[in-house]
Amino acid sequence: MRRLKSIAVVGVGLIGGSFALAMRRAGAVARIVGADRDTQALERAAALGVIDTAAGSPAEAASGADLVFVAVPVRAIGAVLHDVARGLGPDAVVTDAGSTKADVVRTAVEELRDRMPSFVPGHPIAGREASGVEAAVPELFRGARVVLTPEPTTLPEATALVRACWEACGARVTAMPAPAHDRVFAAVSHLPHLLAFALVSEIASRADATEMFGFAAGGFRDFTRIAASSPEMWRDVALANREAVLAELDRYAARVAVFRELVEKGDGPGLQRLMTEARNARRAWAGGKRSTSDE
Amino acid sequence: MRRLKSIAVVGVGLIGGSFALAMRRAGAVARIVGADRDTQALERAAALGVIDTAAGSPAEAASGADLVFVAVPVRAIGAVLHDVARGLGPDAVVTDAGSTKADVVRTAVEELRDRMPSFVPGHPIAGREASGVEAAVPELFRGARVVLTPEPTTLPEATALVRACWEACGARVTAMPAPAHDRVFAAVSHLPHLLAFALVSEIASRADATEMFGFAAGGFRDFTRIAASSPEMWRDVALANREAVLAELDRYAARVAVFRELVEKGDGPGLQRLMTEARNARRAWAGGKRSTSDE
Repeated sequence: MRRLKSIAVVGVGLIGGSFALAMRRAGAVARIVGADRDTQALERAAALGVIDTAAGSPAEAASGADLVFVAVPVRAIGAVLHDVARGLGPDAVVTDAGSTKADVVRTAVEELRDRMPSFVPGHPIAGREASGVEAAVPELFRGARVVLTPEPTTLPEATALVRACWEACGARVTAMPAPAHDRVFAAVSHLPHLLAFALVSEIASRADATEMFGFAAGGFRDFTRIAASSPEMWRDVALANREAVLAELDRYAARVAVFRELVEKGDGPGLQRLMTEARNARRAWAGGKRSTSDE
Repeated sequence: MRRLKSIAVVGVGLIGGSFALAMRRAGAVARIVGADRDTQALERAAALGVIDTAAGSPAEAASGADLVFVAVPVRAIGAVLHDVARGLGPDAVVTDAGSTKADVVRTAVEELRDRMPSFVPGHPIAGREASGVEAAVPELFRGARVVLTPEPTTLPEATALVRACWEACGARVTAMPAPAHDRVFAAVSHLPHLLAFALVSEIASRADATEMFGFAAGGFRDFTRIAASSPEMWRDVALANREAVLAELDRYAARVAVFRELVEKGDGPGLQRLMTEARNARRAWAGGKRSTSDE
């Protein structure tokens, strides 16, 4: 890819900061301007050398940037895009890192208006336990998948630029329509988070919750790890991707009902068949690694 | 505890082998006799020094043993106890390692008959990814919980002996009635396993399963790890603990329905409240360790 003169990173947390570090390490950009409504985070990003310059607003950061990367919580994207649009140069491209895409597209249409063709919705599938700019590392996206969901009206050269940037960061980029993205992630991400929250919530509501948790072991620990995630973020994701999440909840409830019926009827062969299919699929997906918890 | 002259370990897999190694390391036993219907596993156990002597049957192993530890799959416990009873000395104690307890008690009543007071049902909450005697290690039970479910008719000195052995292995021992054990583990172990199998089974059944799995990340990996467990074992556990598992499935389905309604109504505060309670409970349980997956 051509070396960019300047990029703006709005939201200098784990994702925004890691993108800045990865782009810099790849030699893909000369200058990085940051913006964040958390001014202390912004100062730390500058002090850590994650960004070169701290801007006072998204509009100021966007001004003069070849690419604007919006890495804020989904609920804040609208306001940020509104402000970004005010500073955006005529050839600049905008992308984001939101976990849901159809709602971001709807918001972007409203806020970016005639600049919508320069917006490439994106979702990097990456994270780590720590958050904040201090946790940012240039390797975060190495080997990670990034989904872009360009609209029919999106400029092909805008999509190409965003793809090239993510590839410079080491990511594997896939493009698909926003509704397809939201369906896939409702199934493999949003649903499991809701289910884990639901299980812990159910047990925590009991009078003997402490005793229950006291006997929980590794299997429970793995299954419920994602229930330690941010309630704000997953609330927003569930509501932003409501239709797909509801559809996945219903598919899942139907499958659980099948398992329930097999248990109730004492149908060992039926239960074993479904469990074996699941075990094989899980093992194939996890690269053949064995991973049991026979407790 | 007094040093035992001889123990019999029937089923020299991960659990039986680790118990033998731990007892030996603790200096709690002079001689360990093993039995296993898998004669190759039995030979390996002897070659590895996990057992001193290989017996030809559970009855032969039990003959002369102060303690008989039955560490075979739950579905095989009946036949093993039947045979153990034939060789059992008058002062010998028997215990097991099955994941469900009420059904083991029912089986033991049938098979041990007048020797039932010498049987102490047990469940060590331990495991690791590898299985088989080669994976056995003396530290497996260090800090692990062991639940004993003595019956009202169980000899107190039998329970005391089994407790002392587990404590010699480094375990933390709790006693409770078998039905209470089965309810607790239906909630914190059997249910999560069924739920994980159900999720993977549902996604694996789709035409686009490969694409779906292709976008799954760390949260999905954690949530579904237990779906890579043994289908035979978890089929048996679900059926052996059927009533409690069905009750837990229904409680869980009701809680998922609450989450579904909050999503459908777009009730952000309600969703956040339940998620926050779950997050806090999960974090408190996991010792305050943060563990997110904001992908």
